[in-house]
Amino acid sequence: MQPIKIDLLINSRWIIPVVPEDSVFENCALAIDQKSIVGIYPQAEAATRFAPASVVDLADHILMPGLVNAHGHAAMSLLRGFADDLPPESWLEEHIWPAESRFLSEKFVRDGTALAIAEMIKTGTTCFADMYFFAEDAAEQIRISGIRSQIGFTVFDFPTAGGKDADDYIHKGLQLRDLYKDNDLIKIACAPHAPYTVGDATLRRIATFANELDMAVHIHCHETAKEVSDSLHLYSCRPLQRLDDLGILLPQTQLVHMTQMDDQDIKLVKDNNCHVVHCPESNMKLASGFCPVAKLLDAGINVAIGTDGAASNNDLDLFGELKTAALLAKVVSGNAAALNAHQAIRMATISGAKALGWQDQIGSLEAGKSADIIAVEINSLSQKPLYNPASQLVYTNSGSQVTHSWVAGRALMSDRQLLTLNEEKLMRMADEWRDQISPDPQP
Amino acid sequence: MQPIKIDLLINSRWIIPVVPEDSVFENCALAIDQKSIVGIYPQAEAATRFAPASVVDLADHILMPGLVNAHGHAAMSLLRGFADDLPPESWLEEHIWPAESRFLSEKFVRDGTALAIAEMIKTGTTCFADMYFFAEDAAEQIRISGIRSQIGFTVFDFPTAGGKDADDYIHKGLQLRDLYKDNDLIKIACAPHAPYTVGDATLRRIATFANELDMAVHIHCHETAKEVSDSLHLYSCRPLQRLDDLGILLPQTQLVHMTQMDDQDIKLVKDNNCHVVHCPESNMKLASGFCPVAKLLDAGINVAIGTDGAASNNDLDLFGELKTAALLAKVVSGNAAALNAHQAIRMATISGAKALGWQDQIGSLEAGKSADIIAVEINSLSQKPLYNPASQLVYTNSGSQVTHSWVAGRALMSDRQLLTLNEEKLMRMADEWRDQISPDPQP
Repeated sequence: MQPIKIDLLINSRWIIPVVPEDSVFENCALAIDQKSIVGIYPQAEAATRFAPASVVDLADHILMPGLVNAHGHAAMSLLRGFADDLPPESWLEEHIWPAESRFLSEKFVRDGTALAIAEMIKTGTTCFADMYFFAEDAAEQIRISGIRSQIGFTVFDFPTAGGKDADDYIHKGLQLRDLYKDNDLIKIACAPHAPYTVGDATLRRIATFANELDMAVHIHCHETAKEVSDSLHLYSCRPLQRLDDLGILLPQTQLVHMTQMDDQDIKLVKDNNCHVVHCPESNMKLASGFCPVAKLLDAGINVAIGTDGAASNNDLDLFGELKTAALLAKVVSGNAAALNAHQAIRMATISGAKALGWQDQIGSLEAGKSADIIAVEINSLSQKPLYNPASQLVYTNSGSQVTHSWVAGRALMSDRQLLTLNEEKLMRMADEWRDQISPDPQP
Repeated sequence: MQPIKIDLLINSRWIIPVVPEDSVFENCALAIDQKSIVGIYPQAEAATRFAPASVVDLADHILMPGLVNAHGHAAMSLLRGFADDLPPESWLEEHIWPAESRFLSEKFVRDGTALAIAEMIKTGTTCFADMYFFAEDAAEQIRISGIRSQIGFTVFDFPTAGGKDADDYIHKGLQLRDLYKDNDLIKIACAPHAPYTVGDATLRRIATFANELDMAVHIHCHETAKEVSDSLHLYSCRPLQRLDDLGILLPQTQLVHMTQMDDQDIKLVKDNNCHVVHCPESNMKLASGFCPVAKLLDAGINVAIGTDGAASNNDLDLFGELKTAALLAKVVSGNAAALNAHQAIRMATISGAKALGWQDQIGSLEAGKSADIIAVEINSLSQKPLYNPASQLVYTNSGSQVTHSWVAGRALMSDRQLLTLNEEKLMRMADEWRDQISPDPQP
């Protein structure tokens, strides 16, 4: 039999395909052609079956689906470490908002988004959900970089640098959606900022558009106890109940944070088939509270994971986030078996894909899916001895071990070198923003 | 004036001396002579004042005191990732103890301790508190490596591979103490395993020795809620109260874990001037509970930090532990200002030094102190822009950024290369143990 011509064959020591669940293949190869996954084969079989245009050999690596960072504000990477160790109100009102009102611009968004994408590619993310201003400028950087993204256009009921009023935000967002409707790697979602910053009328309109256009809704929700108590005071119900009453709890709704959840909240999320996006490090750093991840998984709710913006994390390393999530789920639930290594890996891959409505394309290494793939080198001193690759990946790993990244078959990083972005130029650019935003760094 | 001859001058972009508190010096130099710190000077002044035998230039680095890892079981690095995501009883009784009973030996301790030391040096630790078996074999590896250590000889009231009974454990430990009494870098401490594994008579004897010999006591305490409720059932008091009644809460007592603390516990620790060693990742991974770090600091209690053994962490990276501690303290106390970056750095340096009774020697870069120093490169994409070096060190950093390490002026690592240990040999040795302990790794 003639060998089948394909674009790329990757031989890897281990492959964690995510589907089937809990499996780790050893000494296998992943075949890729025309942007898509052909299949996984024993290396000896792959060597005779295929005639690949190129071959990558990974002797000490885990090959796995690219990570899905399901919540962040990419451009805020320019405010990384700008204001730390502060109560949330002071952080936001006295530091972040004043800095944004002075410096936020199209260029800020282009530069900050490019910096964030570079960090995300380097640490294993191949798809991210963004929520910020000047979405069209973010989209342009995303397109150039080759990463996959759900871009949420933020909606408020008041003016900001990004828009005049709800009408203006929504109008621009829907225009952007039209512009990118044929792009396979970019989806535009509607991102009402939060229940407490968007009124009933606007939320109802968004629900209508989301239903008609089958558009995802991405919203901060139940981030803090204060948000819940304020809502009880103003609306006589919890924010989630209000969202339900307004018809915005849809199967394509992504509820970000959810640190305050009672049994009725869990039932509402479950009954409406919404997705929860867990941001453990941001929730810890801002002292927001604990998302009850183990309970949500037990209830059958889809839970994805996000880093949030670098201003409240302070990095975009989803492997670090994954370790934190796995550790936190155990101590919060009081069960050391909660969120095991494979569950944590699923949260950062297939569950993220589901949350963004992309589960047919990404999140696992299955034949026919898009070739969104990363390789992670598991060969450092601190990963020895190696009994269990999945455990090592979650508990001893960090994004700095990621060596290769592909999105839809296109290589975005090879041997730790970015291929679509200029790392040195981005670092110089970040230094320039630092000089402009804070000419006298505080020790 | 003639330049003063010194052994070493280190020019560094930033220096965080820890004392004085909250300070960051920029473009300064640290002078070292005869194993000790001479002082910190502006680089231009240092260049004329000193005639150093060697100079190290660190353009993008933070120079700071070496980290103190105040609790661990070094040799257990050979069981890293051997049994994860299990309830504590099953983890210990069905996996760790059976593995130890099969494989624990002098060689296991020598090899595992060497592996752990290599990982600790590489990630910034220059001093660690150990608690395990075959302390004399651990001590030998510690001596060879050049790292600083408090070696706790473990005491149980029952036989293990490490001893027959309490008398035997104590006798061997005191012999070891004699052997190392003139070694500046090694202290021997008494480490009764826990209140629930050591009886009253033995704890009283240990209190006597600790008082007479001014020897530190290192003990697991209030690790889990079950430990406290069992003690209430058996002794009609909480474990900490029992330790106080037995006279073992001394100014040189290091209480490890302390996840279960009521106001009376806090008062007891404070009144007795004991030290608490916080192990956040182990407490999370084993679902043990939350140590109330912010409350302890508010009460004026000295809190150090430890990784615990690699079997329950799963790495020995104290910078990662530090980030987790800073994030966890905020969400547990409900205060985003709790355990700020400088406080976290102190916890891993001067507070660790205090806990081990070594505050006159290490923990800060003060003139006259031992030259126990590390350099951390702060120049990666994920650390840009850089507004605040201390914040970057805690929130965006990991041990993989550590480049240099000195203990008592002796270089243990230079440009990420270990100088006293053979990294490749250690990695091969770890692979051999993996093959022996678990010939068929579980996926």
